[in-house]
Amino acid sequence: MTVSALPTAPALSISDFVSHWQGHRALTRRVIAAFPEEALFTFSVGGMRPFGVQATEIHLLSAMTVQAMDTGQWPEPDWAAGPATQAELLREWDALDERLSQVGAGTDPAFFSALHTLPWGNMPGWVATIYAVDNEIHHRAQGYVYLRALGVEPPAFYER
Amino acid sequence: MTVSALPTAPALSISDFVSHWQGHRALTRRVIAAFPEEALFTFSVGGMRPFGVQATEIHLLSAMTVQAMDTGQWPEPDWAAGPATQAELLREWDALDERLSQVGAGTDPAFFSALHTLPWGNMPGWVATIYAVDNEIHHRAQGYVYLRALGVEPPAFYER
Repeated sequence: MTVSALPTAPALSISDFVSHWQGHRALTRRVIAAFPEEALFTFSVGGMRPFGVQATEIHLLSAMTVQAMDTGQWPEPDWAAGPATQAELLREWDALDERLSQVGAGTDPAFFSALHTLPWGNMPGWVATIYAVDNEIHHRAQGYVYLRALGVEPPAFYER
Repeated sequence: MTVSALPTAPALSISDFVSHWQGHRALTRRVIAAFPEEALFTFSVGGMRPFGVQATEIHLLSAMTVQAMDTGQWPEPDWAAGPATQAELLREWDALDERLSQVGAGTDPAFFSALHTLPWGNMPGWVATIYAVDNEIHHRAQGYVYLRALGVEPPAFYER
């Protein structure tokens, strides 16, 4: 790599980013599975949404993002059409894992620096993509509080 | 960029990563400031630590990480020696923002791919560095639940 290339030198390469996300997805799957089935879509703290509803939103946003990495297109999902049971959520989670494994590392490098049009605005691909991961970490952490409040020990955060 | 460079093509460049973290730091600062002073180091849900204690840990880990980006060294902080009031926490937060602005973009590109020795194990620089951001998002989200439980509207997650 020449000195002139340094300003765009990677902090995270594409394969780093994909394995970063895969590690978080594995952890989030363990958090979904840790919920008592009857609490997943009903229990909440402070008037917030139940974790099952948050996890369904994470899933739909993630599926939208993987689709964009593959095709460059960001069609808005039907937010009301996601999985509605723990088993269905885990099944769709695994299917999306499979798709991310297939297409993630082959994402066009230009995807990350190019400007994209999303339903909620224009932004560089890296901003849109890492937002999906940030949103997952954010809502999953709220699931940690719910689990603690339910008396369930959550999975270790540092294990991916 | 030649085709042979593609396997290490950036998902996030160094300057992308720094601005990503700065955006999260600005949001976390707003969350710290949103807490009623008397609740910051005392209120909790589900037997978890108060948000002030979590935010102090975020600060110490972030300071350790910025120091490593600057020097390549990861000396473990004294976890008991962090700021202990809201005002002190915000002051130290601002000072670290200043340091990150000064040194972040100049981080040696080799830092991110090289293997580093941290007090809790050996890992590539990008893993160690983004862990600090993930840890911040994770604990800040727990602060969101505390704020909701306290009847305080938290700052918008998507604003950075």
